[in-house]
Amino acid sequence: MISSVFAATLFVLFLHDVRAQQTNVSPSGEGPQTVVMNKVKLSFMLDSDGSPMYEVSFSGRPVIKPSHLGFKLDKDSLFFRNFQLLGVERTSADESWQPVWGEVGRIRDHHEQLIVHLQKKGPVAASRLDIIFRVFEDGIGFRYVFPKTSGLGYFVVTGEMTQFALAGDHKTFWIPGDYDTNEYPYTTSRISEIDNKELVEKSTDIAVRVAPDRYAVQTPLMMKSEDGLYINIHEAGLINYPAMQLHVDRASRVLTSALVPDAVGNMAYLHAPFATPWRTVIVSDRAADILSSKLILNLNEPSKVADPSWIHPMKFVGVWWEMQTGKATWSYSDFADSLNAQGQLIPNGRHGANTANVKKYIDFAAKNNIQGVLVEGWNTGWEDWFGNWKEDVFDFVTPYPDFDVAELMSYAASKGVKIIMHNETSGSATNYERRMDTAFRFMNKYGYTSVKTGYVGRIIPRGEHHDGQWMVNHYNRVAEKAAHYHVMVDAHEPERPTGLQRTWPNWLACEAGRGNEYNAFSIGNNPEHETILPFTRLMGGPMDYTPGIFRIKGYSTVPGRQVHTTLAKQLALYVTLYSPLQMAADLPENYEAHMDAFQFIRDVPVDWDDTKVLEAEPGDYVSIARKEKGRPDWYIGAITDENSRTATLSLDFLEAGKKYQATIYKDGTDADWSSKPESYTIEKMTVTSKTRLTVKLAAGGGVAVSIKGE
Amino acid sequence: MISSVFAATLFVLFLHDVRAQQTNVSPSGEGPQTVVMNKVKLSFMLDSDGSPMYEVSFSGRPVIKPSHLGFKLDKDSLFFRNFQLLGVERTSADESWQPVWGEVGRIRDHHEQLIVHLQKKGPVAASRLDIIFRVFEDGIGFRYVFPKTSGLGYFVVTGEMTQFALAGDHKTFWIPGDYDTNEYPYTTSRISEIDNKELVEKSTDIAVRVAPDRYAVQTPLMMKSEDGLYINIHEAGLINYPAMQLHVDRASRVLTSALVPDAVGNMAYLHAPFATPWRTVIVSDRAADILSSKLILNLNEPSKVADPSWIHPMKFVGVWWEMQTGKATWSYSDFADSLNAQGQLIPNGRHGANTANVKKYIDFAAKNNIQGVLVEGWNTGWEDWFGNWKEDVFDFVTPYPDFDVAELMSYAASKGVKIIMHNETSGSATNYERRMDTAFRFMNKYGYTSVKTGYVGRIIPRGEHHDGQWMVNHYNRVAEKAAHYHVMVDAHEPERPTGLQRTWPNWLACEAGRGNEYNAFSIGNNPEHETILPFTRLMGGPMDYTPGIFRIKGYSTVPGRQVHTTLAKQLALYVTLYSPLQMAADLPENYEAHMDAFQFIRDVPVDWDDTKVLEAEPGDYVSIARKEKGRPDWYIGAITDENSRTATLSLDFLEAGKKYQATIYKDGTDADWSSKPESYTIEKMTVTSKTRLTVKLAAGGGVAVSIKGE
Repeated sequence: MISSVFAATLFVLFLHDVRAQQTNVSPSGEGPQTVVMNKVKLSFMLDSDGSPMYEVSFSGRPVIKPSHLGFKLDKDSLFFRNFQLLGVERTSADESWQPVWGEVGRIRDHHEQLIVHLQKKGPVAASRLDIIFRVFEDGIGFRYVFPKTSGLGYFVVTGEMTQFALAGDHKTFWIPGDYDTNEYPYTTSRISEIDNKELVEKSTDIAVRVAPDRYAVQTPLMMKSEDGLYINIHEAGLINYPAMQLHVDRASRVLTSALVPDAVGNMAYLHAPFATPWRTVIVSDRAADILSSKLILNLNEPSKVADPSWIHPMKFVGVWWEMQTGKATWSYSDFADSLNAQGQLIPNGRHGANTANVKKYIDFAAKNNIQGVLVEGWNTGWEDWFGNWKEDVFDFVTPYPDFDVAELMSYAASKGVKIIMHNETSGSATNYERRMDTAFRFMNKYGYTSVKTGYVGRIIPRGEHHDGQWMVNHYNRVAEKAAHYHVMVDAHEPERPTGLQRTWPNWLACEAGRGNEYNAFSIGNNPEHETILPFTRLMGGPMDYTPGIFRIKGYSTVPGRQVHTTLAKQLALYVTLYSPLQMAADLPENYEAHMDAFQFIRDVPVDWDDTKVLEAEPGDYVSIARKEKGRPDWYIGAITDENSRTATLSLDFLEAGKKYQATIYKDGTDADWSSKPESYTIEKMTVTSKTRLTVKLAAGGGVAVSIKGE
Repeated sequence: MISSVFAATLFVLFLHDVRAQQTNVSPSGEGPQTVVMNKVKLSFMLDSDGSPMYEVSFSGRPVIKPSHLGFKLDKDSLFFRNFQLLGVERTSADESWQPVWGEVGRIRDHHEQLIVHLQKKGPVAASRLDIIFRVFEDGIGFRYVFPKTSGLGYFVVTGEMTQFALAGDHKTFWIPGDYDTNEYPYTTSRISEIDNKELVEKSTDIAVRVAPDRYAVQTPLMMKSEDGLYINIHEAGLINYPAMQLHVDRASRVLTSALVPDAVGNMAYLHAPFATPWRTVIVSDRAADILSSKLILNLNEPSKVADPSWIHPMKFVGVWWEMQTGKATWSYSDFADSLNAQGQLIPNGRHGANTANVKKYIDFAAKNNIQGVLVEGWNTGWEDWFGNWKEDVFDFVTPYPDFDVAELMSYAASKGVKIIMHNETSGSATNYERRMDTAFRFMNKYGYTSVKTGYVGRIIPRGEHHDGQWMVNHYNRVAEKAAHYHVMVDAHEPERPTGLQRTWPNWLACEAGRGNEYNAFSIGNNPEHETILPFTRLMGGPMDYTPGIFRIKGYSTVPGRQVHTTLAKQLALYVTLYSPLQMAADLPENYEAHMDAFQFIRDVPVDWDDTKVLEAEPGDYVSIARKEKGRPDWYIGAITDENSRTATLSLDFLEAGKKYQATIYKDGTDADWSSKPESYTIEKMTVTSKTRLTVKLAAGGGVAVSIKGE
């Protein structure tokens, strides 16, 4: 022990003083501060208790009614009232910036900013709190700042009081507020009907579920009001803080920030000065505007990667779907104790990640404009990796005997293909942190330029959660460490994205949602699923959804199991679900059976100069056109839910007067996700900016279009 | 997410089925299995409920009355009853082995072993449990083994039911059963009087205290029965398991294993096959035999360091006491935000770890047969390191601007002195694990061959405890990693030792107890403290107690603060408190004022061929003689508590017929720890094996003797 230290006895405060929902906004007190940008108006005020509040409207229609702001802190359990306004600052910004990769080549950041400086009433040197509001044409963001002069020093957030008082009983697209997963299917219901209990209980296909509040939901939360406003609530720039979930008061329709706690029930350990992530409200009367919003990216910090020349978006195939569908195994043996007389594992004969099989994928990738090959199950530990809260599972550097690292490095290099490293942690982040440097050095040595990380299982440190502050810091540490080693990251099972890809452009994509894989091992994703994802999960950033399943039925021995889309819709997803990393997830032989359709996957890029959302309605349909980066070619994806529909796609975004060659990959006339999902037709035609494509989409169907400029 | 995984919903079971204390031992059931070694007799039996039980006696006197064995597991909350005996195995051993360093040159391991193979009654393939008993001349040890064939696979220990039913209301030397510290002063009381509440509450000088059970105590627990038996309960070989504390049932005098829990209330995550640490009961009718026992070392695994040639016990001085006493600071500035216009820390002018000051210590060490110089506060972070449960405090490689690493490396090397690295983690083990490789590489680069680690503060991962399974694994990882880098370890604030220094001989010493430093920053250690430590804390292994304070009074500005011994007793501690790492803790100038007395510290070695415990009574006095490794010289230390006494030291261990030169460093005739602690006399005389030294020890006093063979 070292002297000069003060005693710090451990104790956890359980605060039960639930705050009253009803408050009096005092029009005569500290008058409201308002900011207007186009149709969006934000007001800030202190109520008669000195509680900070805000309000948002769109074209005069209420979006967020007067709602509370503030915290419960270990040092002040009432850090949401008795404030006085010290002053305000106002600034305007209209700038643009260029992302390293993305849906558009340049992004405009046009906002008005209001900073309110607050101080707790009371004795001298009372605590201070600043709130920064930014108002954009498509919504608002705000963050709390605990200034150096706050007097708080080190402090613990025991609860965040941020509220979103909704103006109606909106139609809502939600998943349960679970501390450890975002992989639930979406439920569409009124706010007043939200209750996740049954869904959580029955979702036994999700490895770890901890959802103690049946009335809590995840963000991004997508809503539609009776009067046609589309409202999306999320956060931006999640750094050193837990993920925000929302507790739903069904009667009052007030949503309250519910932070993911740590092992001892605290939310965040902070040190002033500190700025929280931004709370965001995106709003429009057009659903398409929600998808086009760059508000969340604009609220993130600029890139920390000074020279991003080593960062390359890409498509990839992988030794993966064959394991998902049970044809092959991640493990080399069937049991950890299946050993021969020499103490070596006895191979089960179905190990996917063997040198010959990987070469097959490399050959396929090299022939088909696919830059990467993911290989899962290459390293030892898979016999006994899941479900036991085991700390030391993988070492991330020891291949199975049938996976020749050096040989595959040179083979892949000779074909111009990159093998993608797979680091599954089984949720044991402590083990990964201990070995991370060694793992990244291994990647550098063997020519791996990207890594897919995984966190399937209960988190270690035990008691921590996937979406708590400690793990948020972990994922960010991985991104930073990877940047140091010039490695790109595709994180599976992290917290859902909040636009950090702007700050760490080497963090290309995340899973953090219910991907295509659920069609392999569960009842799957219903046909509307992909029409909701862009409005929810993808609002924060790219998703490694793994589209491109061509063999829609028959891959599983489970009766009735299939992908719940048509083949043409699988193609359309390459455009509607944006990611700089896109997997062609099916087996090479399944592609080889449909090389005419596969041409679209060969062609479609993963980095864009421009994006136009042509039509969109959450839960119903999405049609998007994108222009390839640095080329005149455009690509369109249009999808529908379980209802067939006719998409009307105006090509007025094309250069006027110029002719283009369009290839249209559409559902066959008899196509239907359920009865005939693999029916498609390919049609070629010349188009111009005046063309209006009218395409029939089957139930669960879609259409993909390539439009080449020469 | 990856498929083929089963759902694992998180939940914590709170088991409240407290086990009845009263049980019926069935003499007619499975008959007792007995093992006898000299005076020690052990019996194992199953009671009528099929509960495994054991019993220990010494010369026919009960030591442990029939006591329960077993566990509560997540997979079987009654894993302590309904067992049947499958069979037993008996073996004998009489071997000896040579420690890398220690109190003796060779250690005899003479024991009888009984293995009982148990199986739960019930359906086929019911769980199995083995218990291994070893009976020595001075006590017993037993461990549980969950065999591969146990059928348990992965499992969680939710409670250990091991009991120690004492035969009387013994006099007991105890400290509170705290999950995070062993740094309390000892209380001497009857078993029936044990209650730690008041002591825990008032011990505000201990940084982190978590002692939820007022009737729990730490091991090693030292006891003395009414009829003169000395009994010590502890454990050996603590690996991948939490530390065992003991819950005291004051009425029945039954002690029950109380394991330190993890963040979610579990005790241990295990995977069969697994063997627990050994539970040890050392017993004798002579207190000296307890101190001579090698039972705990014998129960540990042999060394894992194949070539220990780089491991060197040593004495050291350090830039340390001047910080403990407030003369200098660990930090470079007084505040973290004390920055100049260039953003650099503004020095406070009292930073101890500056190059010039360190050179002073190096010079002193080089002149005085001291091999090491510890430097604390050399690295950035000390302005703001404690008390905030902050994760990223130190990076372990960045020196303060006034500490020239390269310059000091060459200066120390030129003087033949080693600088000892200091890695204070502030309890943030996650941060240390992340940076450990880099830290050890830094040590290798700059010639550091040993490290003092520190864990002052609440543990991160938050919710874990210093003495829980996760941290036990951490300390062992540090020892293993250090061995990999050929670095010796002195761990401060780890769990208390359990003989692992046999397995990791590079893990030279630990603090893990109330050291001399408490005399600097608290009410201190009372005069009996050091007469209890050998019977308690040191039973498990060496302690870095930091003896050798010569300026007993006047180092502190706090009125009345002083070391509670005489100066001569400080010298005696170098012999009575064994450690292969011994600090000469006082400032060079305080030694220079008493160079005649300091001669003993110059001379005294830290590695021994032989040890004789001449007299001992816990809480009263300890006199020990040791023979220097590889030399004919002997050293004696004898200490007393607050009562003066006459030590009678027979030198019959000397080689017969040979003359030796003895130097006796004893209390002055007017010496007294309180009124005149710095009074001492040095006497030289010729002695032989027939000499009987009779020395008056002052109240709180001691005597140190060097006996040179030529």
